[in-house]
Amino acid sequence: MAQERTIHAALLGIGTVGGGVYKLTQELGEDILAKTGARLVIDRILVRDRTKKREGVPAALLTDSWEEILRDEKIEIVIEVTGGIEPTLTRLTEALRAGKQVVTANKDLLAEYGAQLFEAAEEGHCDLHFEAAVAGAIPIIRPLRQSLAASQLTEVMGIVNGTTNYILTRMAEDGMGYGEALELATRLGYAESDPTSDVEGYDAGRKLAIMASIAFNSRVTFPQVYTEGITKITAEDIRYAREFGYVIKLIAMTRLARDGVEVKVHPMLLPEQHPLSSVRDSFNAVFVHGKACDDAMFMGRGAGQMPTASAVMGDVIDTMRNILHHSCGKIGCGCYKNLPVKPVEDTSSRFFLRIQVTDKPGALANIAGILGNNDVSIAQVVQKKSRDGVAELVIITDPVRERHFNDAIRILQGMSVLKEVSGIIRVYGS
Amino acid sequence: MAQERTIHAALLGIGTVGGGVYKLTQELGEDILAKTGARLVIDRILVRDRTKKREGVPAALLTDSWEEILRDEKIEIVIEVTGGIEPTLTRLTEALRAGKQVVTANKDLLAEYGAQLFEAAEEGHCDLHFEAAVAGAIPIIRPLRQSLAASQLTEVMGIVNGTTNYILTRMAEDGMGYGEALELATRLGYAESDPTSDVEGYDAGRKLAIMASIAFNSRVTFPQVYTEGITKITAEDIRYAREFGYVIKLIAMTRLARDGVEVKVHPMLLPEQHPLSSVRDSFNAVFVHGKACDDAMFMGRGAGQMPTASAVMGDVIDTMRNILHHSCGKIGCGCYKNLPVKPVEDTSSRFFLRIQVTDKPGALANIAGILGNNDVSIAQVVQKKSRDGVAELVIITDPVRERHFNDAIRILQGMSVLKEVSGIIRVYGS
Repeated sequence: MAQERTIHAALLGIGTVGGGVYKLTQELGEDILAKTGARLVIDRILVRDRTKKREGVPAALLTDSWEEILRDEKIEIVIEVTGGIEPTLTRLTEALRAGKQVVTANKDLLAEYGAQLFEAAEEGHCDLHFEAAVAGAIPIIRPLRQSLAASQLTEVMGIVNGTTNYILTRMAEDGMGYGEALELATRLGYAESDPTSDVEGYDAGRKLAIMASIAFNSRVTFPQVYTEGITKITAEDIRYAREFGYVIKLIAMTRLARDGVEVKVHPMLLPEQHPLSSVRDSFNAVFVHGKACDDAMFMGRGAGQMPTASAVMGDVIDTMRNILHHSCGKIGCGCYKNLPVKPVEDTSSRFFLRIQVTDKPGALANIAGILGNNDVSIAQVVQKKSRDGVAELVIITDPVRERHFNDAIRILQGMSVLKEVSGIIRVYGS
Repeated sequence: MAQERTIHAALLGIGTVGGGVYKLTQELGEDILAKTGARLVIDRILVRDRTKKREGVPAALLTDSWEEILRDEKIEIVIEVTGGIEPTLTRLTEALRAGKQVVTANKDLLAEYGAQLFEAAEEGHCDLHFEAAVAGAIPIIRPLRQSLAASQLTEVMGIVNGTTNYILTRMAEDGMGYGEALELATRLGYAESDPTSDVEGYDAGRKLAIMASIAFNSRVTFPQVYTEGITKITAEDIRYAREFGYVIKLIAMTRLARDGVEVKVHPMLLPEQHPLSSVRDSFNAVFVHGKACDDAMFMGRGAGQMPTASAVMGDVIDTMRNILHHSCGKIGCGCYKNLPVKPVEDTSSRFFLRIQVTDKPGALANIAGILGNNDVSIAQVVQKKSRDGVAELVIITDPVRERHFNDAIRILQGMSVLKEVSGIIRVYGS
């Protein structure tokens, strides 16, 4: 163990998570010393408005000058909890090039500019940690990069957005419609005033890009991720899913196929017995499968002030150990493969298809024929009672190439017997 | 990244797990090089009988001389998968003192001689890794030591023995008795021919000692762990538990209380909604709670050749990175506190109590009175139909100091109205 010394850090941002990080640095002082052999001191906190009062934070620490932090050679760690792309990308790149270690919770940045940041980290021989960027307090980045490094991973699937999981839980358990559940989530602070990034699956897609890159050692960026949100899920879909023994979750899933990496975020029918099915409310969970490790799952708080702050501080403690042992930059980008990302139409899925058809003899045969001609094989079908001459058909298909399924739907939509496509949702299983 | 070089290792033992480790070193050669910057070569495999043929393992690697390995300066990593205390303890101590990094899957050793091994590791400035010693392929040691280092953990509870979880699952789902389920587990290879260590909770107790030491930064050894096995659990207990909305699991649990650390292994009634309740068959899972991270859970394969081998190899890869960055010994023992371990009688639990009593007026009042006099408060009670003048009472208590509960039971056993104590099982909750 190195002799007692002090390691100086700067905090970029002092919002909810930043406040939690600062609080932990104060509460854990002695523990950090015992765990690492050094004291941690937050020297500077970068804010936009230096005059705004922050509860529990000495005003003397606040600065609005990034240059001041960058030039301060005493500062060895930059802890970034501001979010957003710029000016953060420029700042963190500068920090890493200047030899400052970086701990960040910024998924937007990592999911799009991970390669650039890791390049800068390599240049400066620096640590770049981001455990809090994916699934908050759940240790998933470090397990993927270290513990599971020999697991021959083939699949990662997760519930990595707490807002949508909360909405879907309310819909499933309390029979709410999507709008009502979203309203409740907003009122309780689970959803932001503009919920687009959550409900459209963008947030989950960013986290998935990061996880895929690490799990398969090949860079995947957010624009390569197929995303589909939960806004079209109805109470009926959920009820039918239950009839078939499924629950509906927003799933971020990546698979290592023979011809590339699949990265998709979309609602999915999961069998009730699947471990992810019991992940309720705003909890997150990540399920992994590897040839060697078999199945494993990690569950916990995906967001929230102290859970996220605890993940940030776990990274800070690790960085301090690396500083003291002169081993920063030990684990780099890790993307030593260059695998193609498969277009979503070339991936395979099972589908849940809910349609309204004219209730006349031969309608089902007609539809089944078109599906069959397009390689869509039916695994289960339920025809509901007719109302005003319109019958509801609920079909679950076998796995099919998505391109073929889409072709079939396009042809169905041209048929007079088809009144409406009420729901299309992917189904777990192969 | 350091230049390409070769790191030499020796493998102690080539049984099931050792065979898996050797296989992974062969399969992952290029990946290990890409991940670490070095090639891994197993130079020597220590066996008792050099003449025995081992499928897929070159005979030239086998040796029966530990001295040869110890004296070979080329060998930088010792991977131990033999199990047992001696001669392994001596060997690993010698290896660490000689500056060789150690990766081991040996829970017996860590749970009793962890302090000694870490002392030797510190002396030699060496890595000592043991992810595979607890819960097989589930990353739990590294998350506890690193990712969750700032989580202010207060509780760790887990299902960390696959054999007993398999037995209890069969009892719960197929209505088997204990004996029948054990027999099936033995036939399928889930239970050893002498199942004592599993069914009496010793195996889980060893893993718990290791987890408690890391979670609370204070050394706990196996002899300090209270252990109670599953041999007395009956099909009736399981049936009654279900009536109350519980399942029965063998739980290893440690808590940080104001006056010390609690470490107990025992069967427990868990609410059906608890995340651990859905952990079935031979799966393992560890649930943690921290002031900062809130709830988190890790689930996966607790045993098996390749899952365990993948955990060992994750440690080996990490060790290689540390060797190349001259940062071995970065995370030491971590037991910088010296907390007392509480005697089990001073801990509190809720209890499920199933008793047979003479069915006459006032019997229940009598029993309730004795419980009340001993601070045992009743949360729920069910009286079953009487048979031959004997009624069955099933009681769930509020939390009570175990000493007081035991006193109450002793007094009850002196009463003529009590015919038999049929079951006493702890219940989750406070």
